[in-house]
Amino acid sequence: MITKANIQFVKGLQDKKQRQKYGQFTVEGEKSITELLKSNFTVLRLFALAGWIQENNGIIGETECTVVSERELTQISVHKAPQKVLAVVKCPLPTAPLPGSLFVLGLDEIQDPGNLGTLIRIADWYGIQQIVCSPGSTDVYAPKCINATMGSFLRVRVHYGDIIEASESLNLPIIVTAFDGQNIHKSELPEKGLVVIGNEGHGIAPALLKAASVKLTIPRFGGAESLNAAVSAAIVLDNLIR
Amino acid sequence: MITKANIQFVKGLQDKKQRQKYGQFTVEGEKSITELLKSNFTVLRLFALAGWIQENNGIIGETECTVVSERELTQISVHKAPQKVLAVVKCPLPTAPLPGSLFVLGLDEIQDPGNLGTLIRIADWYGIQQIVCSPGSTDVYAPKCINATMGSFLRVRVHYGDIIEASESLNLPIIVTAFDGQNIHKSELPEKGLVVIGNEGHGIAPALLKAASVKLTIPRFGGAESLNAAVSAAIVLDNLIR
Repeated sequence: MITKANIQFVKGLQDKKQRQKYGQFTVEGEKSITELLKSNFTVLRLFALAGWIQENNGIIGETECTVVSERELTQISVHKAPQKVLAVVKCPLPTAPLPGSLFVLGLDEIQDPGNLGTLIRIADWYGIQQIVCSPGSTDVYAPKCINATMGSFLRVRVHYGDIIEASESLNLPIIVTAFDGQNIHKSELPEKGLVVIGNEGHGIAPALLKAASVKLTIPRFGGAESLNAAVSAAIVLDNLIR
Repeated sequence: MITKANIQFVKGLQDKKQRQKYGQFTVEGEKSITELLKSNFTVLRLFALAGWIQENNGIIGETECTVVSERELTQISVHKAPQKVLAVVKCPLPTAPLPGSLFVLGLDEIQDPGNLGTLIRIADWYGIQQIVCSPGSTDVYAPKCINATMGSFLRVRVHYGDIIEASESLNLPIIVTAFDGQNIHKSELPEKGLVVIGNEGHGIAPALLKAASVKLTIPRFGGAESLNAAVSAAIVLDNLIR
């Protein structure tokens, strides 16, 4: 049984202002939550169907857990058909990126939370553990973003800050894609770097293009004018990390 | 001025049943429609702001064109902030894929129209002009799909039919991604084939896996369990076509 106040609070976390005010966000989905409970994240509370709780007693441990009906779960979920369990999680404190990584992903003003989630999942596939988002980028703790990461938010740390400053503090050259860059299929590629992907509509900011040490081009064989941000990132990382 | 009947008809085309009944679909966006008017597609009617019509008189030619207000355009658009013009277009008659292409993309039960659109855009980038979708795949003429192609639906022909039969009639080996495949970075890759991408949730159907001549694996360096359909397709095509 969930109280009205709790329904309102959990639903409120779909809103960025509320997430920032309370420093909390929600995670949904059995698989993500199973992994979440084994991670370093602080799970403040679970709302789950009785059956799920029975099956997962071992991993729930001391975590506060409220039994809810399917109808109640639908009330607090972002999904029309929610998946058995929802977790309220503490947002980790902001930190600066740590030196030592060969490749870091930089995201310049990515606006769509689904795109950000997909980019986190791609970074995770290629073993990239740190992302630097420019301050105006969308919020990593938006439910759509967390959902699109398919659990990869647990392994990839997302920092917000100036990308050029990050490249300096990490001592990594900035790598961008640009129409006038070297052919990514035919060039000798850098062994480390901060790979910057631009905004969905406007691409990479002029200051970042200017600061770039390496400009790469994904060769085009047909008529499309561009590729979307996540697809470009995947192709660039697949060429750099092989 | 748009009639109530027209509003209802155009809005109705957001629904697959209506599109199939009338053999018509809608396209939005200035850029797509400028390209559309120069293409082989039959544009039946335009609904546009007066300013757009004035600026584009040259390409509108004989096409029937209704002047609408911004409010009226919003009524028939799928977007909250529609882009000056909407076209009602005739669906091309279904055809079989034509032999002669080195690479064709096969899509096995792709369900999300946005994903299908992104896949069409990726195919277009790599110069692939034909896609074979299994019969249960989502409809290419859904507004979300057409929108996600960013105009690439004009250059890539989407066929619906059995993928195995298509591979036989096109005389192209089936190429799939599978966890037990050859490392795509380290293997000699085929020079032609029908590259099959599976359903978002279930992957590739067992019969297609069995029929595959080439099984490829995208090497994973981190913790993500999988990549989404469009990202996998882009990486595979980038490795095959370079």
